[in-house]
Amino acid sequence: MSIHTDIGYATVHDIFVRGRNLSTDIIPNADFAEMACLCILGRTPEPNFKRMINLLLVTSCDHGFTPSSISSRLTFLGAPESLQGAVAAGLLGAGDRYLGATQNVAEMLVTWSKGIAADAPQAQFDGRARELLQAYRSDKKRIQGVGHPIHVEGDPRVPALRAISKENGYYRACWRLLDAVEKIQAQEFGRKLPINGAGAMGAIAADLGLDPRIARGLALVGRTAGLVGHIMEEAVRPNGPEIWDVVLKEEAKAH
Amino acid sequence: MSIHTDIGYATVHDIFVRGRNLSTDIIPNADFAEMACLCILGRTPEPNFKRMINLLLVTSCDHGFTPSSISSRLTFLGAPESLQGAVAAGLLGAGDRYLGATQNVAEMLVTWSKGIAADAPQAQFDGRARELLQAYRSDKKRIQGVGHPIHVEGDPRVPALRAISKENGYYRACWRLLDAVEKIQAQEFGRKLPINGAGAMGAIAADLGLDPRIARGLALVGRTAGLVGHIMEEAVRPNGPEIWDVVLKEEAKAH
Amino acid sequence: MSIHTDIGYATVHDIFVRGRNLSTDIIPNADFAEMACLCILGRTPEPNFKRMINLLLVTSCDHGFTPSSISSRLTFLGAPESLQGAVAAGLLGAGDRYLGATQNVAEMLVTWSKGIAADAPQAQFDGRARELLQAYRSDKKRIQGVGHPIHVEGDPRVPALRAISKENGYYRACWRLLDAVEKIQAQEFGRKLPINGAGAMGAIAADLGLDPRIARGLALVGRTAGLVGHIMEEAVRPNGPEIWDVVLKEEAKAH
Amino acid sequence: MSIHTDIGYATVHDIFVRGRNLSTDIIPNADFAEMACLCILGRTPEPNFKRMINLLLVTSCDHGFTPSSISSRLTFLGAPESLQGAVAAGLLGAGDRYLGATQNVAEMLVTWSKGIAADAPQAQFDGRARELLQAYRSDKKRIQGVGHPIHVEGDPRVPALRAISKENGYYRACWRLLDAVEKIQAQEFGRKLPINGAGAMGAIAADLGLDPRIARGLALVGRTAGLVGHIMEEAVRPNGPEIWDVVLKEEAKAH
Repeated sequence: MSIHTDIGYATVHDIFVRGRNLSTDIIPNADFAEMACLCILGRTPEPNFKRMINLLLVTSCDHGFTPSSISSRLTFLGAPESLQGAVAAGLLGAGDRYLGATQNVAEMLVTWSKGIAADAPQAQFDGRARELLQAYRSDKKRIQGVGHPIHVEGDPRVPALRAISKENGYYRACWRLLDAVEKIQAQEFGRKLPINGAGAMGAIAADLGLDPRIARGLALVGRTAGLVGHIMEEAVRPNGPEIWDVVLKEEAKAH
Repeated sequence: MSIHTDIGYATVHDIFVRGRNLSTDIIPNADFAEMACLCILGRTPEPNFKRMINLLLVTSCDHGFTPSSISSRLTFLGAPESLQGAVAAGLLGAGDRYLGATQNVAEMLVTWSKGIAADAPQAQFDGRARELLQAYRSDKKRIQGVGHPIHVEGDPRVPALRAISKENGYYRACWRLLDAVEKIQAQEFGRKLPINGAGAMGAIAADLGLDPRIARGLALVGRTAGLVGHIMEEAVRPNGPEIWDVVLKEEAKAH
Repeated sequence: MSIHTDIGYATVHDIFVRGRNLSTDIIPNADFAEMACLCILGRTPEPNFKRMINLLLVTSCDHGFTPSSISSRLTFLGAPESLQGAVAAGLLGAGDRYLGATQNVAEMLVTWSKGIAADAPQAQFDGRARELLQAYRSDKKRIQGVGHPIHVEGDPRVPALRAISKENGYYRACWRLLDAVEKIQAQEFGRKLPINGAGAMGAIAADLGLDPRIARGLALVGRTAGLVGHIMEEAVRPNGPEIWDVVLKEEAKAH
Repeated sequence: MSIHTDIGYATVHDIFVRGRNLSTDIIPNADFAEMACLCILGRTPEPNFKRMINLLLVTSCDHGFTPSSISSRLTFLGAPESLQGAVAAGLLGAGDRYLGATQNVAEMLVTWSKGIAADAPQAQFDGRARELLQAYRSDKKRIQGVGHPIHVEGDPRVPALRAISKENGYYRACWRLLDAVEKIQAQEFGRKLPINGAGAMGAIAADLGLDPRIARGLALVGRTAGLVGHIMEEAVRPNGPEIWDVVLKEEAKAH
């Protein structure tokens, strides 16, 4: 065993990332989604694949006050000297329940879509969805990737993500299985739980053939941009003191 | 005072980021650099500006084993259940001395370039550089953004970053001042310290007119992608145990 | 549902923790182990219990260069402005594989010791250990809390921790089961894997009747003190640059 | 230069911390405050000193919903798989503005008390306080360690901390200077800002002769216990969803 990385290294005169010269080859050409693929997957993406990676990154960025952005803002309130600390605090909440759910959905879809071709007849997907739902029911496990506390009638991101997946040739077995799960759960299990953003992103990651952990990883990259936005806003117009105050006021009612 | 963000919010049927509909307007069109600008700066970038933002993101991603990537790998060794924890540990090292140096350089250049037009005669930049160097010398402060432990004859990223800044119309007063600092320090102060990557990125951020803290913020976004790459590699082919081992072996020599 | 905590709150004139007045009641009397019990468990510990809590805290503090202390030092190297960031980076490695293993051992022992009295005959513990080992073998699960990469002939902490547990009346069913696991695994399964520190601490937490997660929590408290020690030493006499250097040198061999 | 720590190391048969055998010497005797001193300061504390260290640890633990405990709870909501991540998120807020203020106060008091004996006449302390207040006023710097948003008539911890400092022989020059600052600021500068908890803890750390950064470090140790308490309560009876909800409701008023 020895210490080695294929990602990159520096010499006196050059820096290499995945075997390519950072200064003369990558910097003059690459955009960030390409560079992220190069770092994480070790290859330059073809255009449709890159489009899908951008989709995962863009969708993860932000949508206002979430537990992770609130946590970043409260951290910045106490430690304004450390922007990276406030970002880190926000990312630490991207776990199994929120952004990390993307990984869990991808794992479920990869496992349960095994052996079904992307263009198999619908009945195959429906059958597999039925098996999946029965298995989860008997194990008393909750299906991730469906249902949303706010978007109770359907997550608005899902149709957009599905359409772009189709346009780029990545509406494949995992997406089809997830759609079948939503349908069969409503029709046969009496639970109308529409696919949510984490579900759609998990399906995309799975149909891209990514290691499911990379789905969580890309969500972290996107979210970092959102958190920087929140912290910069907090630096100019703080919400932290008011958030603390409203929590204390609510708590005081309980005494 | 009340709780409010301009970044975004969700309703039952829609999600808005900076006033634009995420599902129907942003997702179908945006790439990640645009979305990062939207979240952080509140506006869609024009193409040259977006090119420069991509440059900052791409350059920050990675170059192999650094304190931050080693820290992420060691964290993943102990806590493989938490990808976000390993990323956060790596980002926490992006402080004043490494990636955060970008912010400090930008602050220095913004302060000291005040009142000089981007197309002022060279003598003005040289004169300002002289004043800056004298002020730092008498305050015994170290100039950040110059010098590198490995790239002692010049950081290979700098010419590439300067060339693209020129192509896109962003080689302005801050870049020119930094170049003057490098020249005057060598010619008149007897210290040949070439501009480093953090220096060039600080000059870019400053000439883009960004709040210097955003320079640190964008470096965090880029680095997150690099760290995800390291952790995914670590998951497949661990270096952590060997790194620990080599540290213990070196330490044992001291007993 | 409403926002409420039983831990504490402040009024204009007083601060209360678990219903006791911090200034007039707690500060004049408590030491830290008592206060930790008050915060986490909601009660003041009797002396033997407190002795055991001290044991868990003291044992977790430190033993030199570990992945978590190396990670803290490398983080401090990049971000000397944020002591809390360097501590956080070290704690993030206290996961399932190292310090968090304590929790996993406690969970295993709580589950498998169910229904056996602390003073049951040895044969009952041996039988239960046999079942546990067979179950883990057929599930291909690794038993945590036994084996150590350095202390191959036995972890020196274990006899000390066992002796003090006995002295204080906390050598009970979970400790006895863990000892039986070590013995039966060597005698009947051909694997001589001595109990390690995490194992002993898990047994202690379980025999104290703690929620197993609190075992991980107390390990984090203890480790924080160790990490502060490492960072303060790093501030005075840095090891970070040399650690980075030795990793790069090892890596260079692979090119 | 070589890699070395004085804190500790392990051999096949033993573990040493600060030169003492962990298993045979430390574990059988030490309590946590002693062990923290051993790790951080490299020595066993005499009883009065240990009492004061306990005081710093106990006072930092907790007082209910603070930005750091709220941040830990929201992080746990998103990532229940990682107790250490939720603790780390809470600690990251212990920066310059809250717990880290202790360090800043200690630095101020160490600097400004130079050359005054602990038993000097009161007039010397008053004079030095006057100089300090004038210097801060002309630099437009805010004095840390005085004033509190809730305890506007005086922080209840301060008299308790002062009394115990006196009992143990650690009411010395830094404490006396801080008391003089409070008095002179009220009498001569027209600002009645009572000493707060961070102020008193900074004075204690300074009068103990600690490196001011250790004041922040000990506050992190104490706070870790408080955060574990919050997270364990959150695991049983969550507040996170309600906190998120109340923030969203307040935010909705602004639309």
